[in-house]
Parts: sequence; structure tokens; C-alpha cells
Amino acid sequence: MTEIYFDNSATTKLDSQVLKSMLTTMETYYGNPSSLHDLGNQANKLLQSARQQIADLFACQAKEIIFTSGGTESNNFALKGTAMEKGNFGRHIISSQVEHPSVRRSLEHLQRQGFDVTYLPVNKQGLVSADDLRAALRDDTILVSIMAVNNEVGAIQPIAEIGEVLNDYPSIHYHVDGVQSLGKFTDILIHPRVDLFSLSAHKFNGPRGVGILYKQANRKLSPLLDGGGQEGQLRSSTENLAGIVAMAKAMRLTMENASQENANHKQFQEKIRAYMSKNSDFKIFSAPNQAPHVFCFALRGVRGEVMVHALENEGIYASTTSACSSRATDQASSTLKAMGVAGDWASYACRLSFGSDNTMEEIDYFLQVMDKLVAKFAKIQ
Amino acid sequence: MTEIYFDNSATTKLDSQVLKSMLTTMETYYGNPSSLHDLGNQANKLLQSARQQIADLFACQAKEIIFTSGGTESNNFALKGTAMEKGNFGRHIISSQVEHPSVRRSLEHLQRQGFDVTYLPVNKQGLVSADDLRAALRDDTILVSIMAVNNEVGAIQPIAEIGEVLNDYPSIHYHVDGVQSLGKFTDILIHPRVDLFSLSAHKFNGPRGVGILYKQANRKLSPLLDGGGQEGQLRSSTENLAGIVAMAKAMRLTMENASQENANHKQFQEKIRAYMSKNSDFKIFSAPNQAPHVFCFALRGVRGEVMVHALENEGIYASTTSACSSRATDQASSTLKAMGVAGDWASYACRLSFGSDNTMEEIDYFLQVMDKLVAKFAKIQ
Ligand SMILES: Cc1ncc(COP(=O)(O)O)c(C=O)c1O
Ligand SMILES: Cc1ncc(COP(=O)(O)O)c(C=O)c1O
Repeated sequence: MTEIYFDNSATTKLDSQVLKSMLTTMETYYGNPSSLHDLGNQANKLLQSARQQIADLFACQAKEIIFTSGGTESNNFALKGTAMEKGNFGRHIISSQVEHPSVRRSLEHLQRQGFDVTYLPVNKQGLVSADDLRAALRDDTILVSIMAVNNEVGAIQPIAEIGEVLNDYPSIHYHVDGVQSLGKFTDILIHPRVDLFSLSAHKFNGPRGVGILYKQANRKLSPLLDGGGQEGQLRSSTENLAGIVAMAKAMRLTMENASQENANHKQFQEKIRAYMSKNSDFKIFSAPNQAPHVFCFALRGVRGEVMVHALENEGIYASTTSACSSRATDQASSTLKAMGVAGDWASYACRLSFGSDNTMEEIDYFLQVMDKLVAKFAKIQ
Repeated sequence: MTEIYFDNSATTKLDSQVLKSMLTTMETYYGNPSSLHDLGNQANKLLQSARQQIADLFACQAKEIIFTSGGTESNNFALKGTAMEKGNFGRHIISSQVEHPSVRRSLEHLQRQGFDVTYLPVNKQGLVSADDLRAALRDDTILVSIMAVNNEVGAIQPIAEIGEVLNDYPSIHYHVDGVQSLGKFTDILIHPRVDLFSLSAHKFNGPRGVGILYKQANRKLSPLLDGGGQEGQLRSSTENLAGIVAMAKAMRLTMENASQENANHKQFQEKIRAYMSKNSDFKIFSAPNQAPHVFCFALRGVRGEVMVHALENEGIYASTTSACSSRATDQASSTLKAMGVAGDWASYACRLSFGSDNTMEEIDYFLQVMDKLVAKFAKIQ
């Protein structure tokens, strides 16, 4: 049976080489990195070498890489850790209306604790403006948190431009949720003004349950998980060594293949855009020249869930706007709403997200299926 | 070369059957359990079936099982989540002087937030007393947190007896750090009065980076990780499905083999005790009839690190009192101190911790090595 996986923003397939590294680590390096004996030392060396590899890819210091359990923990840690650390200096935070729930709900938590949050609006492309950000800055602003790439429509936020603005405000922590962004920028991975940067391995063909928080060496953060003092006292718990080693490998592979992959995904999008532009019943929510792997569209009158299931019947796996909200009762996409998309159109939204395995043949097949579905749904309506 | 692993309280080797389950899951079930399509549904079904398997082993409801990233997160979540939820009703917490750093440092964090913590003392066996607990209870006590099995000496705390005391105080949350306890009790796994119970998979031949917090259905807890709303809104993040499935399997295998394994470990301890009792230069810190897998001893004048390295030279991997504190600058064991062990003796402490693979032949070899080391260190001193 056909199996075309266009849900890579939800999660990706584990790369086979990455799986191999993971296996070898689990079988060979079973010591606890904190143990004093040789098995512990070997495990600890491997841990530090994975950290160094990642630091090299980021062009940062090894001690700036903190291993976590995933994107959600990295985001919670960055936001709550900053709030705990700097809450006495100020209680204002700036973010956007289109953040992932792991940012948005962390901010709502902080609001309940008395913090004041400004949520920047976005334009029709889903982009915040650096000018709006500048205007929102206050004397008591301690944190700015903006995602690099939006998970629902693929909008690439002006991280560097905001960084320029924040150069004038050196004491503010600048956090970037980079979970959807690895390998999607070709210039620099982390803008020099960025203090905190979140990643999650399973979004780039690594294992689930492991992630990174980059923390600029001079910034202070309170830990979320207290305990044995691992990760430089910042994130306690016995280290998930196999997951970390696998993540380092997945990261290297992703960055090596990024420009080829981005070029492919761009071509996929162009082909689909050309197809959809011929039929006014289609609406495309992803602006052109944004993240190449995320493509959000709608077919008039066809609810997102209905489209997902119709595609699935043809062996194509897609999402409504995001996986985490799929099973939630409140299904409205906050990103589309913030972009000013009308409620009915937002309810028709369907997201394709491409990964390293996808091919142009799959896109051709998808478009054939679309022909069929357009005809089918036209008949029903 | 000889490789005898007596450091199972630090971490265990992944069981080969468990590894197989993990592999199959990673390769076959790569959908995101939150995705609406069939790959997502399959992943979600597998997730719920792992949860049900664990609930069956615990004789509890599936919804009472919350998956976390390990013992540290489970402990932080239980303590901080209770404090956040019930801080308005009261601010007093009772714990013990011999808790793992993931409990102790979480409590210190809460003390900095204005909570008041009573740390119960222990006797020479490392045991708290239910009477002391009763005497410490106050009107504003919201939480009692006591570990089931101490990781440094293996003391089994009177969890059931404390549960009886707490039956008269139904509104207090009762948390048990059970990380070292799986399969070590033969009667019941979780006492009915216990509300919160922490486990970590890598302590019972499962993978690292995955754990459990059992939460009694009627108890309320604030989440530590906000986001997509996974785990019944209590612990957000894309689920580490392979880790969870593997943990469920490791848990079943551990419990199936528990009584045989405990009997073996008991024999190991008896043999070592018989050996050491003949030489007054040895001191044994683990009381008899406590957890069979943990054995803490000292040889007069030989520092723990020195002993660990001497054993290592003979292919035997042991620990000073606990792995997490091994690399810390402050190496004093808080458990031994609380037990009233003098500072010099505490500094000589060495911990052996047995696992499922260990054999009596290994114990015999260890005792031969001990003969050698006793002679060698006697010469030096
Ligand atoms: C932009 C963004 N941030 C954070 C996350 C959270 O990552 P995880 O589910 O690995 O915790 C996700 C994906 O779920 C995401 O797309
Ligand atoms: C009693 C006890 N509690 C909690 C933990 C923490 O578990 P983890 O390191 O998996 O987070 C450990 C082990 O490190 C432990 O022995």
C-alpha cells in the first residue's frame, strides 16, 4: 500500500544511521556518566563529545548546550527559568500570538503568577514586526520569546532583525523556539544576540524524548528540575546518553543535507502552488519564501479533519494545522486566527510537512489524489 | 577481561528483550500519537496499551499513570506540582534526612519560596519512624514525601506504617520516591494510601530518559511542563513512545523475576556479610533485611574513591555512596551522616548494588579480590 508521510512537523522517522548510533551506545556504554569508574568515565566522555559536536555545529561553547527531554521542556525551562531568575528585576515579557502551546501555556502560567505578557500580532503572512517589538519594550521587560519557524504555516520570524533591536537592551533574555527551524536557514544557526534556543531531536530524524536548550554562557537561568546536579547544575537527572548521542548524529546529518533538502521542498511547494493557483476553491496560508517544509492550505467547504481522512484513504498522511491540537476539543488554529483568516476557512486548514525521505513522485501522486478529491467533494456539496 | 557490574543502583544494563521492543517501536510506530491519521492512531493505541499494562502491574487505573523523563522529573513534579496546587491551603511539608537529591533539592527550592520543611531523622539503620512523622504533622501540612528504598544503603522505609498514620489526614498528599524499589517488595507495589509514586526505567533494565509518576485519580497536581496537553494535560511534550513501550516491558520482566532475583541478592549479601564479619576493619552500613540489591560497606582507612578504583583495576565496578554525588565537590554522604556514621568512616564508604545479571561466582571473585586488597592496604597503612 502507498504510504506517503507528509506529517514531518508533527514528528519524523528515525534515521537508520541515527538508530544505529543509538543502539551501539545502549549496548556498549551502559555506565552512568556520573559513576567514578571506567564505565562511567567512558560514558561521560561520550556525553561530552556529543556535547562538543553539537557545540561545533552551533559554533558555540560546549557548556552552552544543555540536554533536556525535548522542545516542550526546553521552552518551559527557558521561560520559567528566566522568570524565576529575573522576576525581581522586572515582570514584563514579550512574545507573539503565534507561538507553540509549550510557549503560550508557559506564558499563561507566568501570567497567573503575576507576570505581564505582551503578545505581538502578526501580519497576513504570519510574521511579527521588529518595529512592533521595539514599541512594546518597557523598562521592566526581562524576556523576549519568539519562535524561529512557525509549526502551522512555516512563517520564518525576523529573528536577526529583532536581535538588532535587542542589541540596545542587553539585559533582556532573548529566547527563540527553534524546534521547527533546524537546517531551514542557510546563513546562521543562532543569531549572536540570541541567549536561549530550543530544539527537539524527533523533529529532525532523531529520537523522541530528547532535546536541547542552548544557553549563552553569561545568562542566568533557574533550573526546572533540581537534583543530582547534572548539566552544570542546570538540569538534573541521569543523562539519556543514547538519545543524546543519536541526537548529535541526527543534527549533523540534517545540517549536512539541509541545502539539498530545502531545495527539494521548495520545488514541492512550487509545484503544489502552481496546481492550486488554478482553482479558486483552494486557499494557501503559507506565504511563499517561508520555511520550505511546511505547507498549509485549504479546500473550500472541506474541514481539515475530513481532508486528513480523505488523504489517509489514499495513503497520504497529513495533519490539520498542528498535531498537538488535533485531539484537543478546541481545534481552532491560533496562528491562522492571528493571521486574520476567517473562522470557516481556518476550519478547512490542512498542513503538509515534508521530510528528508519525500520525493517529487509523491507530490505528483498527491496532486492526482487532489484532482480526485476536488471532484468528489464538489459532488457532495 | 573481567567485567563485573555492581553499580546497578546508578544505572542498569538495558535488557535485550526490552531493547528489541524499543527497536520495533521506533521502526514501526513512527507516527505522533496526537496525529489524527492512522499512523497517529496506531501510535496512540500502543501508548495507551503500554499505559494499561503498567496500570495492571500497579493494580491502578490507566489514567493514574503519567509518563515523565525519569525519576528526577517525577520527584520534582510530585513535590513542586503539589506545592503549586496546594500552597494556598498550607505551606508545611514533611520529608526525611535521607532523600535523593532530586527530592532534597526540590524541597530546598520550595523552602526558598517560603515553604516550611521538616526533615525527619533516621535511626542507625537509616529508617524514619512513623511516630516521628505523626509528631511532625501540623494543621498546615500539605505533603509528606518519603522514599521507599534508600539508594545509598538500601534502607526500606515504613511506607505502609506511614500510610496508616496518614489515613487520619486524608487531605495530605503522600508521595513516595520508589525509584530504587521496583520489585524489591513482594507484598504490594503501592500502598493504598500513597497518592504519588515515582519510578525511573533505567533503574530496572529499561532505557534512560523515561519514568513514571503514579498519581491517585482524585489528587490534583499542577503541571511542570505546560504545552500541547499530553498526559491528560499534566505533562506536555511529544510522547517518547519507544521509551515508554520499552519501560512497560522492563517493568513486567522485573516484576516477574523479582522474587528469584531478591533471593539471589540476599544470598550475595549473606556471603559478603559472613566474610566481612570476620575482620573488624570492615564496617557494614546496610542493615540486614533491607533492600537486597544495595550493600554499603567500608574498609578502615581506605577512602571510597580509592576502593572504587582498586576494585575497578580488578574488573569490578562499584560506587562510592551514590553515583550522582560522585563527581560533586561535596562528597559527604548525607544518608550516612544522618545515620550518625562518623565522618572518617563515611568517607570510606563503598556501595555495591546488584542487578539481574550478577552471579554467586562474581561474589566469590569479589571476595578473593577483597582478600588481596585487605592485604595490600594493610601494607600501605
Ligand atoms: C515550534 C514547536 N515548539 C515546540 C514543540 C514541542 O516539542 P516536543 O513535542 O518535542 O516537546 C513543537 C512540536 O511539538 C513545535 O513545533
Ligand atoms: C532514590 C532515587 N530517586 C531518584 C533518582 C533519580 O532518577 P533519574 O536519575 O532517573 O532522574 C534516583 C537515581 O538517580 C534514585 O536513586
